[in-house]
Order: sequence, then structure tokens, then C-alpha cells
Amino acid sequence: MALFSDTTGGSSPRSPASSVGAVTPQFATFDEPLALSSGRSLPSYTLAFETYGTLNADHSNAVLVCHALNASHHVAGYYAENPDDLGWWDNMVGPGKALDTDRFFVVGVNNLGSCFGSTGPASIDPATGEPWGANFPLVTVEDWVDAQVQLADRLGIGAWAAVMGGSLGGMQALAWAIRYPARVHDVLAIAAAPNLSAENIAFNEVARQAILGDPEFFGGDFYRHRAIPRRGLTLARMIGHITYLSGEQMETKFGRQLRDGLNYSFAPEFQIESYLRYQGDKFADYYDANTYLRITKALDYFDPARATGGELRNAFAAIRASFLVVSFTTDWRFPPERSRELVRALVQNKLNVSSAEIDAPHGHDAFLLDNPQYHAVVGAYFARVAEGFSATAPHPSPLSAGAGRGSASVQHRADDSLSRLRERAGVRGANDAPETTRSDHAMIARWIAPNAHVLDLGCGDGSLLAYLARVRGATGYGLEIGNAGMLASVGAGINVIQRDLETGLNGFDDASFDCVILSQTLQAMRHIETIVDEMLRVGREAVVSFPNFGHWTHRWQILRGRMPVSTALPYQWFDTPNIHLCTVADFDAFLRERGCRVIERRVLSAGREVTFAPNVLGELAIYRFRRA
Amino acid sequence: MALFSDTTGGSSPRSPASSVGAVTPQFATFDEPLALSSGRSLPSYTLAFETYGTLNADHSNAVLVCHALNASHHVAGYYAENPDDLGWWDNMVGPGKALDTDRFFVVGVNNLGSCFGSTGPASIDPATGEPWGANFPLVTVEDWVDAQVQLADRLGIGAWAAVMGGSLGGMQALAWAIRYPARVHDVLAIAAAPNLSAENIAFNEVARQAILGDPEFFGGDFYRHRAIPRRGLTLARMIGHITYLSGEQMETKFGRQLRDGLNYSFAPEFQIESYLRYQGDKFADYYDANTYLRITKALDYFDPARATGGELRNAFAAIRASFLVVSFTTDWRFPPERSRELVRALVQNKLNVSSAEIDAPHGHDAFLLDNPQYHAVVGAYFARVAEGFSATAPHPSPLSAGAGRGSASVQHRADDSLSRLRERAGVRGANDAPETTRSDHAMIARWIAPNAHVLDLGCGDGSLLAYLARVRGATGYGLEIGNAGMLASVGAGINVIQRDLETGLNGFDDASFDCVILSQTLQAMRHIETIVDEMLRVGREAVVSFPNFGHWTHRWQILRGRMPVSTALPYQWFDTPNIHLCTVADFDAFLRERGCRVIERRVLSAGREVTFAPNVLGELAIYRFRRA
Repeated sequence: MALFSDTTGGSSPRSPASSVGAVTPQFATFDEPLALSSGRSLPSYTLAFETYGTLNADHSNAVLVCHALNASHHVAGYYAENPDDLGWWDNMVGPGKALDTDRFFVVGVNNLGSCFGSTGPASIDPATGEPWGANFPLVTVEDWVDAQVQLADRLGIGAWAAVMGGSLGGMQALAWAIRYPARVHDVLAIAAAPNLSAENIAFNEVARQAILGDPEFFGGDFYRHRAIPRRGLTLARMIGHITYLSGEQMETKFGRQLRDGLNYSFAPEFQIESYLRYQGDKFADYYDANTYLRITKALDYFDPARATGGELRNAFAAIRASFLVVSFTTDWRFPPERSRELVRALVQNKLNVSSAEIDAPHGHDAFLLDNPQYHAVVGAYFARVAEGFSATAPHPSPLSAGAGRGSASVQHRADDSLSRLRERAGVRGANDAPETTRSDHAMIARWIAPNAHVLDLGCGDGSLLAYLARVRGATGYGLEIGNAGMLASVGAGINVIQRDLETGLNGFDDASFDCVILSQTLQAMRHIETIVDEMLRVGREAVVSFPNFGHWTHRWQILRGRMPVSTALPYQWFDTPNIHLCTVADFDAFLRERGCRVIERRVLSAGREVTFAPNVLGELAIYRFRRA
Repeated sequence: MALFSDTTGGSSPRSPASSVGAVTPQFATFDEPLALSSGRSLPSYTLAFETYGTLNADHSNAVLVCHALNASHHVAGYYAENPDDLGWWDNMVGPGKALDTDRFFVVGVNNLGSCFGSTGPASIDPATGEPWGANFPLVTVEDWVDAQVQLADRLGIGAWAAVMGGSLGGMQALAWAIRYPARVHDVLAIAAAPNLSAENIAFNEVARQAILGDPEFFGGDFYRHRAIPRRGLTLARMIGHITYLSGEQMETKFGRQLRDGLNYSFAPEFQIESYLRYQGDKFADYYDANTYLRITKALDYFDPARATGGELRNAFAAIRASFLVVSFTTDWRFPPERSRELVRALVQNKLNVSSAEIDAPHGHDAFLLDNPQYHAVVGAYFARVAEGFSATAPHPSPLSAGAGRGSASVQHRADDSLSRLRERAGVRGANDAPETTRSDHAMIARWIAPNAHVLDLGCGDGSLLAYLARVRGATGYGLEIGNAGMLASVGAGINVIQRDLETGLNGFDDASFDCVILSQTLQAMRHIETIVDEMLRVGREAVVSFPNFGHWTHRWQILRGRMPVSTALPYQWFDTPNIHLCTVADFDAFLRERGCRVIERRVLSAGREVTFAPNVLGELAIYRFRRA
């Protein structure tokens, strides 16, 4: 068996510079039994896989890509005999792409129970010499991961630089991090969820009933009847397909377009009907009904928090990986709220996590499509992941690694991963932080205890967090709603969570931070009392800075009958984002009335502290306070 | 045939004071052929119906209730032989309820093609003496309405006080207003849409394919095979049921609850699976597969704008009825945006319309449930409808009307409806308007031309519109986001559209109003430039009033170092909704810079005009302006 793929970039029209080119599937057979979650076991099994790029000397640059419901190990490139059969994530994986095969050694693997090459219900049961059929066990996401561990060992990969997947693939990546914490440095969980919702299960159940009720299903043993439950499979796929698209996208693509006018019959009349029938029909041509049943069951079963009484926080306790969590605004199958549950549990465990909520119209399918912000965030994240191993091998040289080398490297990487994870428990990228140029940042840094755990609300490009990490060893997270700031923070290795502050800090636990910072954002908030209450709920201390409306230039302009415009408040009254302005005296009174104790207060002008008449001469006020 | 129901309120535990009590279904058979949209015709047909309440002397208090997919003519009350079989809208229809059977004569009718008593696929085809089966024609919403017209004639109802329905029933109400404009005074279209979206059609198509592919369906002639396509029906219902609930509601009701732990088989494990199977199974017990196919097709076909090249505005041109349009926030089958399309087309035709967007967690099913704001709005609307006929019969006395009386009354009502519609083309309830107590209202009224068509943004309880209608004969609409204001406006007979101003005025056409008013709301808007641009796009003139931040008391407080609090600006800096304050000088400059021409400007203090130093002494500024 060839262990590594013979990817060849080349001159075919199908392989531009950014393609991994023609690829060949590989097969690894394991003769040790695999114990399954159901209590049953598989006596032996084969996994189909593909690889792209080159494994580096210490085997530290390997990335596992996990597939979703109907995909396979064919992640990137094409098959020489069928150049149109492009890998399902070819836009993501390739030379110079977000997952850059010039830097990473990428492995795609087909799940156990599938119908694309790994052992599944259509495979021959060695005990009978007949297809497994109905007797093929139900497998879980954890079973898949356990099988993939065997493949990793075979490939000599002790720890993955990253495990990545979308949808069900994201769940596998999660299961990897939970089940094999020392073998996963980073996880990219895209369009995923901590478990299926009731609605998700409902759709799966309808699809299963369609298959189970098809007379051609023969209780799962249709192979020996030379039958295919096409109607059931077609219905299942039609239902699934509806949930992959957003309603908006379906409307844009099909709307109420007719094929040839109304015919007042049950023959297809609307384009959407033809499209769904076509998709269903095509699916029935290549997909196995028993696989469909089992893969939807694996989805239904996935629920790491089941073992911990529903507490995802506890389910994540063993995780040591850093995370990028990506969701899509119009995904109603695994909407952004589900990803927020993942982020919350990761934050509760003080793990490194960044999360992006991508504004895309395509629904769940968006994770397969090329969206600039999405691919930029993933690319920026992988660039940071690459730093983890390029320190060892700054200029990774092509390597024809042999199987023999693997074991030693695994050990090396496993040791390395421990220290690396320890180092990265802090805010990453701290060493990149420039000297701060903002006077309030330097002031805030003086108030932050060494190694404090901080939350920075409206963190922008992450410069304050980077500065605090550098000068105070601070750890923590930034919240940022803007795409540019979010991307810049990821690029800088800052833990940034894309979130609207106006919805409060409900993803964060009481007293979970030493300090919560709101730097020059207070005045732009719609709900001042809510955010201040939330800051003091989540943090033991709060630091707030804002432009002082009491500054004499503002008073002077108002005295002259106009709303003030200044360096600190550069907007016009009608387009200003600063909608709740106050003076130092106002904020003093506000905190007093709310029973807060001001620990320290500084008022600055031109970057220097003002002690005389601060409410008149101060441009910027910075408060440090807590509940009395 | 008994023409009127023998509803008897009584002492049964099933008939509290608010129930119509025990009811009896009735049947009307029509021997004239009914021409259908498909080009075919039905030689004869029977409609099943029920009635509640008493028809008044001039037959002007009749309300038709149209049912949705799987309901029937059994709208309210119960059957003596089965007291548990409550009408599907019993919470809405009854003595003292939102649709008050003490005031209205309510008719529920079973659609043609159904399986609950009206002629349908399971009925005997007189030509063959066998069930119609596959040969029963496809019927449309318009066909249903045409059949219902025959019933109205039979009942002596020339014009309905209102036609009301939810979901598919709302579409029937719409079709009534379009097809028989002189016979419908008011329409209540609840959880409806101008047509099905691609996603809606997609779900219907999957359901149909499940039925069509069931081997027990026998091409639609399963009756003669003594078969029932139970599997197909069950699947269809399971799919439908998922779309009736919101994901949120499904999560609350079922979540990931298991029945008895995991069994690693395809037997039901999660509660949601059992629930759906149960619902599907129950449905297969009583519903007819041919009816299901036809009723989903009727839904797919409904599209009044098809006849007018997709222009709903033109499709509504003949309508004379007034409308209440209600939608529910979590309804993803017919979401609020679809109702907004209806509202837009009604506004384009300058028809009376109010719309409520009810915040309810129950998804599409919410229209069947008891929600206080929902029932209050419907009740308030019906109270205004009742004024239309109680003027003639202020104290409607119980009447045992005979069929003979109908025809004359129809004519009477038809004539009456004309004048009533003319009268109501203006803002309704104008005569209720009290003398205004707001100085800016009186000022604004002076700037409004007689009979002007106005849009009032943030209309609150509708008092300005009512005042303008009374003193200037103005017509138009108010926009209001608040539930209380919305309800008060409906109660006052004001056309009120529940809408967030921040999303702009995209439901309104260019230059469609003489004047757009933003009274003391500008300063609370997030996007000032957008709303002013939108006002000048939609209206030929704009009127804006706002508190003058330049008032000397504000200047004085700021000079003293605090954000001002005054009668005009009563909030604290941190909780004020007034987020974009300006002075008279600022607004002058704003309009000048945007190329607007101020037609008139008044500055008030204590309700009196200020001419000297208005930016210092004025509390409230009112501008009338247009593009230069």
C-alpha cells in the first residue's frame, strides 16, 4: 500500500497552479477488531483515504479533513480517469489555498460505514461471505474517530496540526479533540453544532422512514434481492437538500419559475420540483441506503455532553486543542447559535478559541462554497497553525517520508504539543504586538494584574489584547462584530469571538474574568446599563474608557448652538455612532447611583493625565471599577 | 336542509359561556356545474358547512371563516355525540371572543376536494357510480371561492362583513377580495402569503412524492383496491408537521429527550421521532391521500399576480375590501416578510390595511393558538367591522332569517358597501379623534393640504393621523413598532402597519404620499440620513419635529458639566432613546447640505411659537421641507 499520495500539480486544464492535480485514492486495512459504541465490534475494516502535500520531517504538518453526510475521502484534486470528479473541498485545499498544501500534509478519509471505499454495509461480511446489509452495526462519530486514529498511527502522525471539518465533519473534529486531546493541536469546526436539535432529528427521521418504508429496502438486505430502494433514497435526498439551502437562496435560484406552464397534474411543473427530483434521482444512483440510515443515526447520536449530564463544559474538560469555530448567518440546519454553544463551552474551559459568523446567503451549503471572508479567516488561522511547526522547520523541505519514521515523530510531536499548548494557553501572537500608540491602552495595562484573564469588548484588530499579553502576560478573548477586525485579530493570533455586544454577554459565565474592558465603545452602545451590568457580572473588575463630552471644546460648541465635532468625537450629529455621550461628572454619578466603587480614574488630554478640572480639560476618561 | 345552525349555548361542561356549544354540520348541494381553473368542470357538488351566531335583519353581519390544509367546516363548538371534537378555531370564535358570535353570524365551510363532507376524490362520480379517485379534478383556491359564492347566495349573504382565514385560509380570503370585490367588506389574512415560496413548494413536492410513490396509492384509485397509502400519508404529515412548528418550539417541547435510552437500531429513540410518527399515523387514519395531493397543489398554484405578470399591485387593483394582515415572528412557512408583500400591494392601491407582526414562539401553528396580543388585535379589528353594520342595527336582535330575505339584503348591502368603502377610503375612525393636545400636531395640521395622503412614521396610538383625518380629511397609514400603539391604532380605526422604521421604508413606493411625517422620533433613530432620504423618496414633502438641543436649559446644563435632562428630553444620558440629538442650527445646516428646501419652519416653546433666538429659546422644532 502506498502510504502517501502521488499528487502531481501539472499542465492539465483541470489542474491550474492552485490545484493539487490528479490524485489517487488509497486503502488501509486493519485486522484488529474495532470496538464500537453500540457494544458490537468490527472484526476488520478498510479505510479509504487520500493525501495532498508533503509530510514534513517531524510529521508535524498533518491536517485531517473529515467529511460530512454524502462526501468522501476525495477532498481535493481530480482523478486522472475522470477529470470532472473534483474533490468536494477543492476550493479550500490546494497550493496557496486557505488550507495550503505547500505547507500542510492533508489527509482526507472516508468514514466507516460509508459506501465510497471504506468498509460499510455493502462490504462483504467475512463471517458470511455475503454483504453485511442489515447486519452492519450502527456506528457513531466516536467510532469513526477511533478508526481514524488507527490510520493516523499507520501514517506516522502522532498529533495532527489540525483536524478540520464542516457539518458532520466538524463534529468529528470535535470528537477528536475530546477523545484524543494530545493528538490534536487545532480544530476547525465549521458549520457544526454540539449535537442535533429536535428539528434536525425530525428531518433525519423522515428521511429514514422514507427509506425503511420503501418495499425495495427489504429490511436492509436489498443487495441479495438485487434491488435498490430508489424511492426512499430519492425522498431522503430531497428532504436533505431542502435543509442544505437557505430559503432565500432557493428563492433566488428557483422562485416560482415554471418548466412549461401549468399542467394541472402531478407531473413536475415548477423548476424547484424538477431540481429536487433530479437531485434525489442522482443521489439514488450512487448512494447506499444502509449508509444513509447509519450516517443520519450517527448524526442523531452525536452528543458529547450526554456523558456529562448535558454539561458541554464538562464534556470539553479534557480538550487541549485551540479552536476556530465558523458558522454562517443563513444556515438554519446548524445556525450560528449552535456554534455559540461550542464557543461558550470552550471559553468556560479557558481554551483558545476564535469564532467567525460569516454573512453568506447560501444556508448550510455555504461551508462548501467560496466566500472571501470565510476563506480569508480559515487561511489566516492556518497561517498561525503553520507557525506552530515552522518554528521547528522554518522552510519545510519536500520530504518523501517513509512509514518507519512515523513512530519517533509521533512521540516528538506529542511532547512538543504539551509545551506548545501550555504556551498557547495565553493569548496567542503576543509577541507580534507592537508598542501601543494609544494612551488609554498603556493606562489600562497598568491596572491589569500579571497573567490576568481578560475580556475585551469591541476588540477591533486585537491590539489592546496583544499589548496586554505582551506587557502583562494576560490571557483571554476579544469580542468584535466587524469582519475586518475579526480577520485582523485571527491573523494576529488573538482569540476573537465575532459577536454583537448589544445582545449582551450571555455566552459568558459569572465572574469568569479578572477584568472586562470596554475601550472607547461605551458611547456607541444602545444599552448602557445592560452592558455595564453584564461587565460586572462576567468580570470581577471593569475598565471603561470614553470621550469626555464635558471637554471645554464640546461645551463651547454647544454654547454656540451646534452639536460638537472634535478629535475625540469626529462625527456629525446625524451620522455619529456615538449615541450615548456623557461627561466625567455624569459617569461618576452613574457609577455612584448603581453602587459601583471606582478603584481608579484617569482623565487624559493629548495622551497626558489631567488632574486639574478633568471634566473641563479631559478628552478621554478611563475608569476602573467594581461592585461596592 | 337547515340553513342556519342550531347553536345552543348551554350547561354542558364543554360549553362554558364563551363556547358556541353543540353544533351540527349542514350540507348544501348544488346541481349546476362548476367551471374549474383547469378547464374541467364538476357536474354537481355538495359543500359541508356550519354556522354560529345569528344573521341580522339586513344580513350584514356574516363572516366567512376559511380553513387551511387539514381542517374543515368545524370551526367552533363541539358535536353532541363527540364533545371532545372541538372546532379548530374554537379559541377565536364564540360569544365574547375575538370573532364574537353575539355580534356576528359566522360560517365555516369545507373546501371542495376535501375529505370531510364536501365533494372530493372519495365521493361518488355520478358518471360512473364509483369514487372519483384519480379522476377527481385538481381544484384551485379560486375554484373553492367560486363554490363558496354559491353557498353565500344560498344563505342570502350578498356581502360578507368579513372573510377570514389563516394560512391557506388567508389565501382564500384574499381570493374572495380579488374575485368578488363587492361581496367582501373586510379581509383578515392571517399567517398567509401572496403565493408559496420555492421552499414551500419543495416541501409540498416531497410530501406528494411520498404519497405518489406509495405502492398502496394505486395511481389514486386505492379506494377500489380497498387500500390506503398510509406510508405516504404518514411521511407527508411528518414533513408538514416539521414546517408548522418553529425550531425553537420543537426544541422546547422535545429537545433531545429519549424515550428509553439508546437502542442502536432504527426503532424510535428520541421523543421527537415518536411524536412525528404518532402525528403521521393519526393523520393517515383520517385524511385522504388524493385530497392531500390536491390541496398542496392548490397551495402551489395560488398566485394572484400570475395573471398580472407578477405584479401583485395590479392583481389587487379590483379589491375594495379593508384588510387586517397578521403574521408571526417565528413562522418560517409564511414569515412576516411574505405578509409585508401583501401589505405593500394593498398600500399601493391605497386600500385600508393594518398589519400586526405578533411575537410568538410557535411558528406557523401560532395562528391557531391563543396569544393575547393576536386575539386582542383581531378582536379590536372586528369591533370596528361591527360598527359598519351596527350603525344600521345598533342593537342586533336575534333573527331567524329565512332564505327569502337574502336577495334583497344582498342588494342593500352591496349598495351600502360602496358608500361605506368610499367613506372608509380615508383614515377610519376619524370621528373618534379628540381635540389634539400636542402643539406640534396642530402646527403640522396647518401644513397638510385637504385630503392629503400621508404616512406617519412612529404613529403611536394614531392620534396625529386621527386628528389630521378629522381636521384635514387626510388619508393614509401609520407605522408603529410597539404592540400597545399598534393595538390602540387598530382600536381607533387607524390604518397602522407594525414595522421597524430602522429598516427603512422599502415597503413604500416613490412619491406615493403627499407628505411623510416624523413627529418627535428623529432623535431616536439610528440612521438619520437613511430615514430622511427615505421620507423624501416616498413623500413629496416631509415634516419632521424634534426637541431642540440648543435650548438654553440644555446649553446651561452642559456648561455646568452634565448631560441635560429637561421636559423635552426627560431621560438620563445612559437610558435615553434619544440618540441623535441636534440643535435647530444643526438641522438647518443638515438640510442645506443635503440640498433640501425648507418650506416652513416653526420653533415652539411651551406650545407657542418662538421667533426671537429660536435656537436658544425653542424647545421643539418643526420643519416642512422637500428636495430643492
